[in-house]
Amino acid sequence: MKRLTGTNEEISAILYQEQLELSKENLNVEETVRDIIEEVKKRGDEALRDYSLQFDKIELDSLEVSQDLIDQAFDEVEPAVLSALENAKANIESYHRQQLETGFEDQPSAGVIRGQLIRPIDKVGVYVPGGTAAYPSSVLMNVIPAKIAGVKEIIMITPPQEHFVPAILVAAKLAGVDKIYQVGGAQGVAALAYGTETIPQVDKITGPGNIFVATAKKQVFGIVGIDMIAGPSEIGVIADASANAKYVAADLLSQAEHDVRARAILVTDSEELADSVEIEIERQLKELPRETIARPSVENNGRIIIAENIEDMFDLMNKVAPEHLEIAMDNAYDYLDKVQNAGSIFLGHYTSEPIGDYYAGANHVLPTTATSRFSSALGVHDFIKRIQYTQYDKVAVNAAEKDITTLAYAEGLQAHAKAIEVRNDKN
Amino acid sequence: MKRLTGTNEEISAILYQEQLELSKENLNVEETVRDIIEEVKKRGDEALRDYSLQFDKIELDSLEVSQDLIDQAFDEVEPAVLSALENAKANIESYHRQQLETGFEDQPSAGVIRGQLIRPIDKVGVYVPGGTAAYPSSVLMNVIPAKIAGVKEIIMITPPQEHFVPAILVAAKLAGVDKIYQVGGAQGVAALAYGTETIPQVDKITGPGNIFVATAKKQVFGIVGIDMIAGPSEIGVIADASANAKYVAADLLSQAEHDVRARAILVTDSEELADSVEIEIERQLKELPRETIARPSVENNGRIIIAENIEDMFDLMNKVAPEHLEIAMDNAYDYLDKVQNAGSIFLGHYTSEPIGDYYAGANHVLPTTATSRFSSALGVHDFIKRIQYTQYDKVAVNAAEKDITTLAYAEGLQAHAKAIEVRNDKN
Repeated sequence: MKRLTGTNEEISAILYQEQLELSKENLNVEETVRDIIEEVKKRGDEALRDYSLQFDKIELDSLEVSQDLIDQAFDEVEPAVLSALENAKANIESYHRQQLETGFEDQPSAGVIRGQLIRPIDKVGVYVPGGTAAYPSSVLMNVIPAKIAGVKEIIMITPPQEHFVPAILVAAKLAGVDKIYQVGGAQGVAALAYGTETIPQVDKITGPGNIFVATAKKQVFGIVGIDMIAGPSEIGVIADASANAKYVAADLLSQAEHDVRARAILVTDSEELADSVEIEIERQLKELPRETIARPSVENNGRIIIAENIEDMFDLMNKVAPEHLEIAMDNAYDYLDKVQNAGSIFLGHYTSEPIGDYYAGANHVLPTTATSRFSSALGVHDFIKRIQYTQYDKVAVNAAEKDITTLAYAEGLQAHAKAIEVRNDKN
Repeated sequence: MKRLTGTNEEISAILYQEQLELSKENLNVEETVRDIIEEVKKRGDEALRDYSLQFDKIELDSLEVSQDLIDQAFDEVEPAVLSALENAKANIESYHRQQLETGFEDQPSAGVIRGQLIRPIDKVGVYVPGGTAAYPSSVLMNVIPAKIAGVKEIIMITPPQEHFVPAILVAAKLAGVDKIYQVGGAQGVAALAYGTETIPQVDKITGPGNIFVATAKKQVFGIVGIDMIAGPSEIGVIADASANAKYVAADLLSQAEHDVRARAILVTDSEELADSVEIEIERQLKELPRETIARPSVENNGRIIIAENIEDMFDLMNKVAPEHLEIAMDNAYDYLDKVQNAGSIFLGHYTSEPIGDYYAGANHVLPTTATSRFSSALGVHDFIKRIQYTQYDKVAVNAAEKDITTLAYAEGLQAHAKAIEVRNDKN
């Protein structure tokens, strides 16, 4: 891992520039995606079948994944996986249920009622990648918050396969997906955004995907809502001399194995720990099946920063605003109030980041590339709308008339003023 | 106003297509904006001064609007306007304070702590248009929720003027803006997104603007957060025979006067009311100073739909998902539970929509073009981040090891599994 020195301002500026570079997609597929979306808008199901043949080399009988196939997946899935998914589901549910919002209402003065309704989004589409990137944990993380929000219909789409990974279908069923369609790529996103004969149009699309999927999501944004477009995964670890180098190294590598563009950053006030972590990383790397991914990730993108003291470590990490933040210190909990920017925090020597990826209950769909400065983990709040309401009776509107019409006339909007004045018997 | 007939599905599909057309911007300024942003990134303040000379024909002494100018605005502003702004501020504050969220924490099992922190965004930039589109009410609506969220620094930018509208500077001061800079257009947005020698880089940019501002906001999204990109304003009115045609017409016109692309939609189960509203619109139009805007708006974009019954009216309006929704019925409040999609609701015969634009307290920055299906009014929630945290002790992580590693191995992510196993003494 490369060591960086300088002020926190300097280091965070460098890390940010590097992160932007890592996030850049080299492929430009804007045009291709635009064409695919147009075809799906025009030809609906027929276009989906054609693209399936062209891209996935599969001739589809049915766009919908049948209940039979789902039942079969429950027969095929390993019992240990089923049980782990069930336990993860329970944890994710109990965490996210705490995010449920209620509306409010007040009566600030006579004749006035104001409030806010919470309404679930009506229909949500969840994209689930196919092949080796098919993660049942992501199915749970995307679907469960929508379900808790009260979304009426959850549609999952996933690229057609000769044989689906059973855990994907099982996770979908457990999480409460209503319908599964086998369609992937930009054409799948287009189907969800505009609807086809078979696939219902949704109001919001979430879930990860390749560059075609991400580009399609950007292009249909506005027609439907979308979740974030995530960059490569990141972990930032704040560790002091109390940290266990073996644990820290293992956690850094757990991010590094995702992607050669993934990044691991260690900030420590202990030179000794930094040295031990480096030795441990080398030792553990050699044992990793995914060494060919993890090694270039840590060697090219891994960074170590030696800080002066605790204040300095948190100040730097707040500037970095990492997706995942581990605080590998005794009494880590006591430092929570120093964190201003991070997607998800893992506290203490035993809270390895993969606990959060799979299990503890907090969401693993998180803001990357320093966007945790202004955005948050996926949650129930992403699947609801807040609708304002206001009621004034005659006395109240007449009482407010002078203030409102003064502002309306000052802004040159006379019809606004007249709509208030017309409610006064004098007019 | 044109009358539409058909099923709710048919009518809402037509209205949506029309709305998309109205939202289309004819100008393509992508390239120009990209160049401007690059110049500001490269040359900072100097570029801002050059653009000010080029676009605003003003040679700037200072980028910052001085405290003297702000004090002067308080001397110049009409007392009635000042007082109206103060009253509006109090209402907006008391409404939005109800949106404040608190974090949560639970201990779902021994050795496990999970929670969510609420943190304000650090720095926010608010764009305020210049000239005739300078609305002090928009300053209050953008700034107050950020202030209540606890944003540490709120920067306002607005195009340079020979003489600022006093109410704009007054509203900024009242709402709690920390600094005001006189820079507009795409260059202003670029300055906020990347920072210059004088203007601090912010984390999120909100506020309305012309096509250059909107395009710049889209281009810097990801580097900073942005609020929505609003389309033309809309009002939907659900009215039955109990409605007052004079009031309904006045409210429809109050939206129509915003913009020739603004749209007013009346849904009613009373043919008689529809007729009276049309007569009233014609009568009131003639008296309107902004008739040249309001007339093409209602004539081209205004729509009346006669519905069979109350269920039908709400069903259609939920499909339309209007920015503003008036329910002009006796006992309007009782129909709140029928509303699924709308930006802001105005209840009963006296709650004219301009009450919400200026005064009652709910926000007037609202989702347009049917995006209320998946998004909401600007609020305190747009200026906070939710940060998740998790803590497992040794016993807890060892107890969860089997489930977590089962899922990690199933997903082919061995380093994830090893990071858990390394915490077990057996390894």
